[in-house]
Amino acid sequence: MLRRRCGTSGLVLPLSLALGVAAATLGFAPRSPSSAPPAEPGGVADRESYAEVVKRIVDAVLADNQSYVKLQELCDGIGPRLSGSENLSRAIVWAQETMRRDGLENVRAEKVMVPKWVRGHESAEMTEPRRMPLAMLGLGGSVGTPPEGITAQVVAVRDKDELERVGDSVAGKIVLFNNPMQPYSTERGTGYGEAVRYRSSGAQWAAKYGAVAALTRSVTARSLRTPHTGATGYGDIERKIPFAAVSVEDAELIARLCARGVRVVITLKMEAHDEPDVESANTVGEIRGRELPDEVVVISGHFDSWDVGQGAHDDGGGCIMALEAAAALKRLDLRPRRTIRVVLWTNEENGLRGGSQYPVQHFDAMPQHVAAIEADSGTFEPRGYRFEINDAAREKRAVPQLAELMRVIAATDAFRGVTLQAQAGGSAADISRMKPFGVVLLGQEVDSSTYFDYHHTHADTVDKIDPRHLSQNVALMAATAFVLADMPGRLGDE
Amino acid sequence: MLRRRCGTSGLVLPLSLALGVAAATLGFAPRSPSSAPPAEPGGVADRESYAEVVKRIVDAVLADNQSYVKLQELCDGIGPRLSGSENLSRAIVWAQETMRRDGLENVRAEKVMVPKWVRGHESAEMTEPRRMPLAMLGLGGSVGTPPEGITAQVVAVRDKDELERVGDSVAGKIVLFNNPMQPYSTERGTGYGEAVRYRSSGAQWAAKYGAVAALTRSVTARSLRTPHTGATGYGDIERKIPFAAVSVEDAELIARLCARGVRVVITLKMEAHDEPDVESANTVGEIRGRELPDEVVVISGHFDSWDVGQGAHDDGGGCIMALEAAAALKRLDLRPRRTIRVVLWTNEENGLRGGSQYPVQHFDAMPQHVAAIEADSGTFEPRGYRFEINDAAREKRAVPQLAELMRVIAATDAFRGVTLQAQAGGSAADISRMKPFGVVLLGQEVDSSTYFDYHHTHADTVDKIDPRHLSQNVALMAATAFVLADMPGRLGDE
Repeated sequence: MLRRRCGTSGLVLPLSLALGVAAATLGFAPRSPSSAPPAEPGGVADRESYAEVVKRIVDAVLADNQSYVKLQELCDGIGPRLSGSENLSRAIVWAQETMRRDGLENVRAEKVMVPKWVRGHESAEMTEPRRMPLAMLGLGGSVGTPPEGITAQVVAVRDKDELERVGDSVAGKIVLFNNPMQPYSTERGTGYGEAVRYRSSGAQWAAKYGAVAALTRSVTARSLRTPHTGATGYGDIERKIPFAAVSVEDAELIARLCARGVRVVITLKMEAHDEPDVESANTVGEIRGRELPDEVVVISGHFDSWDVGQGAHDDGGGCIMALEAAAALKRLDLRPRRTIRVVLWTNEENGLRGGSQYPVQHFDAMPQHVAAIEADSGTFEPRGYRFEINDAAREKRAVPQLAELMRVIAATDAFRGVTLQAQAGGSAADISRMKPFGVVLLGQEVDSSTYFDYHHTHADTVDKIDPRHLSQNVALMAATAFVLADMPGRLGDE
Repeated sequence: MLRRRCGTSGLVLPLSLALGVAAATLGFAPRSPSSAPPAEPGGVADRESYAEVVKRIVDAVLADNQSYVKLQELCDGIGPRLSGSENLSRAIVWAQETMRRDGLENVRAEKVMVPKWVRGHESAEMTEPRRMPLAMLGLGGSVGTPPEGITAQVVAVRDKDELERVGDSVAGKIVLFNNPMQPYSTERGTGYGEAVRYRSSGAQWAAKYGAVAALTRSVTARSLRTPHTGATGYGDIERKIPFAAVSVEDAELIARLCARGVRVVITLKMEAHDEPDVESANTVGEIRGRELPDEVVVISGHFDSWDVGQGAHDDGGGCIMALEAAAALKRLDLRPRRTIRVVLWTNEENGLRGGSQYPVQHFDAMPQHVAAIEADSGTFEPRGYRFEINDAAREKRAVPQLAELMRVIAATDAFRGVTLQAQAGGSAADISRMKPFGVVLLGQEVDSSTYFDYHHTHADTVDKIDPRHLSQNVALMAATAFVLADMPGRLGDE
């Protein structure tokens, strides 16, 4: 079963990466002098094993990196970056300048047309049984109300089943979905996936029964009267109704009042509307490969955010990881066998146009895309990766290789006490469109126990990010990308 | 040293309460039949020891009580209750109705004139380096701005020392105090006491150096861009400047920008102003004592709140504890030797007029005030009491009595796993004015690790209160008040 496969330069391989052997000692141990390969300018194997280069990368990033400075430049200097906004355009200019300053090559903005949804002024006020402004955020993609607003009685339902039971009685009324998100647990993870259905589809469900507007409880398990925005859609219904999120506190209050038989009336005013698509871009920069420059490992985050807060965890941090991982490799003068390409996706939040267009624009080059990494789970202590590999045989061979890579990275000082794992599972939205092309997808995972407290809120700001966690993520992404781009065979090759 | 002191009815005492003996078995163990006292209508000792009556009270409260229903009526039905507001007047009416329905005696509103501070519309907007509305709340007692607002450059300082160093350079500018509150720890408790000085006094410090307005970081260790209001004062300075709290996130952003040398300009608009004092009241109801009705044990919370959120933890919960503790004793037909008096204080937050007026209005009766209990630390899992006793000899005797009472209450099923302690320390604001009269003061303590997350915010709402914690607090207050009101001698008597 052991077999050596050599790259074009005839290098001796780190064994386990080439062969899918899980024993940690095989591939990443320092080479013995007798197995030293011929010198290869810019390469790694001429100087050290991957265990050594991984340690170099991680140590260098943790000792000194510019990730937090860059994150502040992006978040404080520019702010939130909704698709179609001037802020996002400014951020794209900033990112290209930053990449050039860091010495990246082929820096460019790859044009993508994106939707432009504009929030405008908005408010929700309870007018009966007493006047009280509600903490709300309109949902991305929602239509607006007439200028005078929509004033109607509220019917609160806990879930879709209850809506179906009350049925046409909601006609002419405002439906409130008060479906709670389950708190994070180590066993079950976050309750986001289940709860977010109400934000995604609540308006179309309520419109079907004649509701004139809809509200949903913010998708979070923890609130300080904090509204959470996010994308919604109308499916194929013809009559679109305005749809907004209210804070958990307000949803609970309304539901309590309704449960006691109190008539609750709300006035909802939203100027929300769509404007014609505008030009945006995926922002790209590279470290060209020294030997197989047409083969590409993508490292990425999404550059757009919602129009509240600073888009720090979602996903400024992920973008900075990619920018700084490449910058760190440049500073170390490490040029891998293949190209590492930084891509800052546009329009993940409300259209996925960046991620969708990329495989179209790079269609002929997709077979040369070896792997794509995206970080879009917040910037907390790293946990490793969730991977998607659409070829079972390749996946089987890749699993022990990834496991060993995680062990090698976790063995560095920066990850003391941290467990890094590579597990099969959903990776990330933007890179997902490359899956049909056989690209190995890697979603960078973190301790996401508090992510949804901040997600899509005014509170997703720089101060929520621990500089050390950001540095650890930069190191993880840089080391992983370097090894995947430099190893002689592709991950999971026979 | 052992000595028995008999009440007017000649009862055998629960020993340790009378004698200050700490051994738990002495006082609260069930009596042996041979020591059974003569029957006493309405009393306890004719039926059981205090251990038994404590268990009866606690079990009955936990099995069935109306505290959460009452809390919802107050918070959802009426809402926040700032001094001088219509809401507080409505709450005072509601409380009297509730007391009468529960069978309390001598229900009344004892008139107190209170200050009326009105927030009005308010906003703070960063206009340079980019436009961004700030999450803010004006501070109670602040003056307002001219209608067009105050627009000025911001100087951020971390603490008072830094303000003094920058000195007159803040003239004509807005000072931001960005002093962080330390997170809660079991060793040090909350960091509130230290951090709140900036909210209390920041405006007068900044005005001294010529600042035109002041902002302060909200007093909290946890934020989801959550502004916290609270009282401020100007001391004896002549030129009062407008003063508002901004969220931690906004304070950090401004401080980061200033630290980078970026010019930050803010426009502050506040309609805040004082109006003439208006009539309010301490709301009072009683269970008259069966034997010493002029001797009084007060149980209390403060009924006013800030004008945001629902005043649920601060201090709706404390008021409901007092209301429901009395109601529970009525339902159990337990009439103690002395009078238990429920007092819902007015104007704790911005004047302490209720607590200040009470000893004036009841001056002649103060010697008959045996003890005063107030709950104003939020409604979380109970921890016991902090007590103040201004007579060292009495305190020494009271300590083991209180310790034993805590042990007896903690031994009931409702408090399994909970440690109840009585410790010397600050009790609570409203009752503090009774200290000079020798009244034993008891502040009901809870697990306050998250209290300041909600304190004085829009997020201080019913949903933050666990009904079981509320019930445990009702039980603790009812049992404590009953024993203190029923024991033959006063707490700490020789």
